[in-house]
Amino acid sequence: MAAIVTLLTDFGCKDPYVASMKGVILGINPGAVMVDISHELRPQQVFEGAMVLRGAYRYFPPGTIHVAVVDPGVGSERRGIAVTGGGYTFVGPDNGIFGLVYPQLHDLKVYHLVNQEYFRAPVSETFHGRDVFAPVAAHISTGVPPQAMGPEITNQTGIAFPVPDVGQESISGEVVYADSFGNLITNIERNHLARFGNLTQLRADIGNDTLVRFCRHYQEVKCGESLALIGSGDFLEIAVREGSARALLMLKKGDKVLVTKEDEQERS
Amino acid sequence: MAAIVTLLTDFGCKDPYVASMKGVILGINPGAVMVDISHELRPQQVFEGAMVLRGAYRYFPPGTIHVAVVDPGVGSERRGIAVTGGGYTFVGPDNGIFGLVYPQLHDLKVYHLVNQEYFRAPVSETFHGRDVFAPVAAHISTGVPPQAMGPEITNQTGIAFPVPDVGQESISGEVVYADSFGNLITNIERNHLARFGNLTQLRADIGNDTLVRFCRHYQEVKCGESLALIGSGDFLEIAVREGSARALLMLKKGDKVLVTKEDEQERS
Amino acid sequence: MAAIVTLLTDFGCKDPYVASMKGVILGINPGAVMVDISHELRPQQVFEGAMVLRGAYRYFPPGTIHVAVVDPGVGSERRGIAVTGGGYTFVGPDNGIFGLVYPQLHDLKVYHLVNQEYFRAPVSETFHGRDVFAPVAAHISTGVPPQAMGPEITNQTGIAFPVPDVGQESISGEVVYADSFGNLITNIERNHLARFGNLTQLRADIGNDTLVRFCRHYQEVKCGESLALIGSGDFLEIAVREGSARALLMLKKGDKVLVTKEDEQERS
Repeated sequence: MAAIVTLLTDFGCKDPYVASMKGVILGINPGAVMVDISHELRPQQVFEGAMVLRGAYRYFPPGTIHVAVVDPGVGSERRGIAVTGGGYTFVGPDNGIFGLVYPQLHDLKVYHLVNQEYFRAPVSETFHGRDVFAPVAAHISTGVPPQAMGPEITNQTGIAFPVPDVGQESISGEVVYADSFGNLITNIERNHLARFGNLTQLRADIGNDTLVRFCRHYQEVKCGESLALIGSGDFLEIAVREGSARALLMLKKGDKVLVTKEDEQERS
Repeated sequence: MAAIVTLLTDFGCKDPYVASMKGVILGINPGAVMVDISHELRPQQVFEGAMVLRGAYRYFPPGTIHVAVVDPGVGSERRGIAVTGGGYTFVGPDNGIFGLVYPQLHDLKVYHLVNQEYFRAPVSETFHGRDVFAPVAAHISTGVPPQAMGPEITNQTGIAFPVPDVGQESISGEVVYADSFGNLITNIERNHLARFGNLTQLRADIGNDTLVRFCRHYQEVKCGESLALIGSGDFLEIAVREGSARALLMLKKGDKVLVTKEDEQERS
Repeated sequence: MAAIVTLLTDFGCKDPYVASMKGVILGINPGAVMVDISHELRPQQVFEGAMVLRGAYRYFPPGTIHVAVVDPGVGSERRGIAVTGGGYTFVGPDNGIFGLVYPQLHDLKVYHLVNQEYFRAPVSETFHGRDVFAPVAAHISTGVPPQAMGPEITNQTGIAFPVPDVGQESISGEVVYADSFGNLITNIERNHLARFGNLTQLRADIGNDTLVRFCRHYQEVKCGESLALIGSGDFLEIAVREGSARALLMLKKGDKVLVTKEDEQERS
C-alpha cells in the first residue's frame, strides 16, 4: 500500500541499523516509500533531532508517517508513542524529539505504544527503532489506526526551546543550530522581526563588537563576508557568503545575537 | 517488477559510483525498490562489509536481493558470484564478503557469474559493481533465475571469524567490530552466555584490570559509565552510556574480552 | 506517475534540506522514484558537482530527470533552467553545473524557469532547491513539458574544463578530480591515448621524477604501489592499490600528468 514513511535517526550510515529498520518496514508494507530525513545527527542529541524534524516534516504531503529515533533511554521506562496531528503521524520515543512539532499541529493526539501485536518479537532491549517504531509505523502505513497502538495520553514530553526577548528597540535571541554549511540558525523568527519594518535597516550584534548587516540573499555581500538573513526555515540566520559562519565567527549554540535598528548616524 | 535490491559498498556517497549502479538497475527493472545498506565501509575492508551485511540482511523480506561490492580484486581472476539460500539472493565478488552469511543460509547454492548476456557491455576493468553485479541483480529481480548466470560452484571463498573459547567458568572472546556509536561488538554470542544463567551475575574483563558489569540496557548505569550487554545483533557488546566505548576504553578490533562469573565475595 | 528524479546537491545529509526537496517532489508526484546522486559535494563547488553529474547521469534510463543544486548565487540574478537533451532532462541553476554534460547531449534545449505556476509559493531567497527546482522537476515528471517552464535560451553558462595537450610523443594533462578512494582522475581520455597503441607501453610522469606504469586493473601491482589506468569514466586515473593516491603521492587538482611512451632502453 503506497504510503510515505520518513526516517530520522542518530545511527549514522555505516552500520546495519538504518537498513534493518527499512527491511522491517518493507516486510510489513512492501509498498512503503521510504525517505531519509537524516541519520547524521550527533549521537543522543534529541534537541538536534527535534530541530531537523521541525525543518523537514511539513514539506511532505499529508498522510506521511515520520519515524524519529534518537533514543538514549531505549530499554528503560521511557514510553514509545505515536502522534497524530496536522495531517501527519509521528512515531518514536517520548523524550522530546517531537517537542518542536507539537505546537504546530492542530488536532494533536498522542498514543502510548503498548500493543505488542504491532511489534517485532522478541523486542530487543537496545534497538526499539527496529523492533517497535519501524513495525508500528509500517502497520500504520497499511491503514491500522494509530489509536490501535495503545491508550491516548496527554502528558507527552516536550523540549525546551529558548524564547527570544522581544523589546521595543531590539530583540535578544541566541544561536540554536548550526547547519552543515556553517550557517548559524537563531531562535528569532521572521514574525518577531516584522514589527521593525524594513529588514535592511536592522543590524545583528553577535558579540565582540561585531555588527552584521541584514540581507535578502548571500550575493549582497562579498565572498567571505558575514550577513544576517531570514533563512528557508523562517529563522534569522547568521551566514558567511561561500564560507562557514560557525568557523569564521567562532559562534556556537547558546551564543547571543542582538538585533537592533541601525541608528540614523550610522546610515548617513 | 516489484523487487527489493539492497546495496552495500565501500564507495562512499560523494562520487557517482553508487548512483551509477542504481541507474543501471532501474534501466533493467524500473520497478526495483532499492535500499542502501551502507556505502561508508572503509575502503577494501571485506570483513567489515561481511559484518554489516550479516547484521542487516535477515531483516528484509524473503525474495530480497542483496548486492555487496567491496572488491579490491576487481578486474583480476577473482570470480563474481550469485548466492541463493534462506530465501535470499546475494550478488557480488567471491572474496569472503558473504562469508558470515553462508553458515546461516539453508539450501545454499553458489553460481559463478559468467553469462555475459546479463552484464553491461563493455565491462570496465575497475567497476564490476556497475557493469556486472548491478545488472545481474537487476535481471534476477525481473525473474531471471540465478542459475542462468553461470555454473554452480562449491568452492566459494569464506572469511575467518574468530571463535570464542568457551570454558566451564569463563568465555574468552574478542572485539570484532566497532559501530558508529563506538559500541564494541565481540564474537561472544547470546547462546554462548546461556550456560551461565543470570547474565547480571557476569562480568566482562576488558584488560587493564577493568571489569565491566552486565546490564540489560544503557540506563542501568550512569552517563559515561561502561557496561556489557547483549546487543541487537545477539552479540555481547561493550558500551558506554551516551558515550563511545571505543574512545573511552581505547579498545580496538582484536582486543580480548574475558567473561567470568562474579565471585561470591564480590557480590556480598 | 512513475518517473525517475535524481538529486545532486552540496547540502550534506545531516540537515533537513534534502528531505524537504523530496517531500515537495512527492507532494506533486507521489509516484516519483527518487535517487540520490550525491549530497556530499564540498559547499559551492560547482565544478565538482559538474564532474559527479557527468559521471552518473548517463547510466540512468532515458526519461530520467536530474536535479542538481550547487547554487552559491541563489536569490541573485542567476537564472534557473531546465535542460533537455540526449533523452534526459536537467533542472538547476544556470551556473555551469551542467557545463560538462552539454557537449554530450544531442538535441540540446535550455529553458529559463520563469513560470511561477510551477514553483512553491512563496519562493524563499535562499532555498530554490526546495521552492523552484524540486517542484519544477516534479511537474516535469508528471508530464508537463519543459518548454512550459519559460522561454528557450541559448546563452546558457558553461564551465571551464582543461584540455590536455596532445602531441606526437606525449600527452600533457592534469588532475581534475579526486574520488573518495583517493584515485586521481585526469582530463586525459581513453580516446586521447588510442593513438599510442598498447597502453602497457606507456608511462605517466607525475612530477618529482616519479614514473607510473599503466595497468588494466589494480592487482597488477603490489598493495601500496601506484599505477595508471583507464578508469570507469574513461579518464586516465592515477591510483594506488588498496591505498589513496591523493594521500600517498600528494597530488591535487591542477597538478600535471605527462604521458609518454616507455623508451626502448627502459624496456630492455
